[in-house]
Amino acid sequence: MREAGERARGATAYVTLEPCAHWGRTPPCADALIAAGVARVVIAAEDPFPQVDGHGIAKLRATGIEVQTGLMRDAARELNVGFFSRIERKRPWVRVKLAMSLDGRTALANGESKWITGEAARSDVQRWRARSSAILTGSGTVLADNPHLTVRLEQNGPVHAFVPPLRVVLDRHLRTPAESHVLADGQAPTLLLHAASISANDSCFEHVACAAVAEQGTLLDLNAVLALLAARDCNEVHVEAGPTLCGALLADGLVDELLLYIAPVFLGDSARPLLHLPLLTDMANRWRLQTLDQRQLGEDLRIRLRPRP
Amino acid sequence: MREAGERARGATAYVTLEPCAHWGRTPPCADALIAAGVARVVIAAEDPFPQVDGHGIAKLRATGIEVQTGLMRDAARELNVGFFSRIERKRPWVRVKLAMSLDGRTALANGESKWITGEAARSDVQRWRARSSAILTGSGTVLADNPHLTVRLEQNGPVHAFVPPLRVVLDRHLRTPAESHVLADGQAPTLLLHAASISANDSCFEHVACAAVAEQGTLLDLNAVLALLAARDCNEVHVEAGPTLCGALLADGLVDELLLYIAPVFLGDSARPLLHLPLLTDMANRWRLQTLDQRQLGEDLRIRLRPRP
Repeated sequence: MREAGERARGATAYVTLEPCAHWGRTPPCADALIAAGVARVVIAAEDPFPQVDGHGIAKLRATGIEVQTGLMRDAARELNVGFFSRIERKRPWVRVKLAMSLDGRTALANGESKWITGEAARSDVQRWRARSSAILTGSGTVLADNPHLTVRLEQNGPVHAFVPPLRVVLDRHLRTPAESHVLADGQAPTLLLHAASISANDSCFEHVACAAVAEQGTLLDLNAVLALLAARDCNEVHVEAGPTLCGALLADGLVDELLLYIAPVFLGDSARPLLHLPLLTDMANRWRLQTLDQRQLGEDLRIRLRPRP
Repeated sequence: MREAGERARGATAYVTLEPCAHWGRTPPCADALIAAGVARVVIAAEDPFPQVDGHGIAKLRATGIEVQTGLMRDAARELNVGFFSRIERKRPWVRVKLAMSLDGRTALANGESKWITGEAARSDVQRWRARSSAILTGSGTVLADNPHLTVRLEQNGPVHAFVPPLRVVLDRHLRTPAESHVLADGQAPTLLLHAASISANDSCFEHVACAAVAEQGTLLDLNAVLALLAARDCNEVHVEAGPTLCGALLADGLVDELLLYIAPVFLGDSARPLLHLPLLTDMANRWRLQTLDQRQLGEDLRIRLRPRP
């Protein structure tokens, strides 16, 4: 609108999200549209955020601006899928990344897993990490692989100033070693979630915080974990974890999307499985998924899926 | 040439395979080309069959016909991949079909495997069965699933008179039940291959024959099995078997091609694995494959691959 200047007067504005009516980090967008003198606003998706939630539309209409909603609503919601999830469901959009062989194995029996997939697939993963608010893993993965869980952008790619995703480690008994990258590298903030029965001393590290979460069985309560992350404004949570945590999220119906990177190799049946899931005795109860898209990345295949309800 | 008649005189003939120079089931093709008066023959692939093997080319050239070879040779050999394999390597082209979940599982822990993949994938399998000379399985699969291993063509599709593929069961101790479909349905010939130490009585069933094969470890000698099938003029062998036989063929370097049908479901880590393969302790030794093509079949994905040398 700033570029259009006077030419915006009488025009139609197309926006993906309902303009806000309140002062947040920026002034109300609805006021700017009114000041610009637009005649009509076409809104793809209504904003469920309590301080907007129809107030933006009402404010526009009150000044005589014609407002239409719903044009390409699904596509617009997809752009902000994590935001809608956090506001409407009080939990982040959970995207689980898994890299495996064609026979569904993620590591050799001895734990070796570098590298099943190739450079193009690993670079693609960085982009999904970058768009997330948090990267979630378990202490088992930290102990086994000692990952950085930071975003490594390509050297020649565009460099954006962006907030590094919060690294979240589910670490019931606080066994993450002090020298592990997520605690010691200082490259991004880290949150250790532990059982309430453990007392944490998180003063040792800058960038590291601890919080207690209720337990459920032998894991932390995953619903409580996601509620906590939503309360901390996490829209999208990117999961890179082992078969136990990924399987538990799936079995609990908490996975919204899967990124499956498949390398054209076999590792055999002694290698480690993709997901620990409860014993299935009837094919009718198999976990069914819907394929969103497929893409070739170097020699590897990426399949993006959503669990079916 | 029959259609072209006199117009073939002085023309160029393009053929995928070197014309034969001997009397087989048909008269020599080279003679027909000579009689038609063509001036030039472009041959994609030379015929390694001992009774041809250059004699066809020589016969044409002896009459003054210009002969060129090698145009699209690889594509032409692909058309008859099983024939070239049998003649040049003395073993059939071995194509292994596997149907699995996204997490690389072929059946539930209790053995249930019907149906992981959908109708389109299962119909596609029929076409690969139909082009094969033999369908190979193990007695374990017969005992577990009692398959027919016949070709079921679509009702409305074109009906060709074709020889049903030979059903071959690796059955070391002749434990295939007399009432199993492969022995009792009479819909296609069946060959039971057993250990030499077992004496077979194959006079009970029409369409059923037995043959002894050397053993190697706890299986029949797979090289001997394939040599026997090549000697019986099998060009392409289609394998539908369990993780033991498929894994042994792969580990022995006897798999030429894989048809992997992947259903968008998870079955979990208690379900049965895709392939029994020797324990891998070094990622450098993983079984590497090359993707030939991918195709969506209903909800399922088919990936066709070849093991890398």
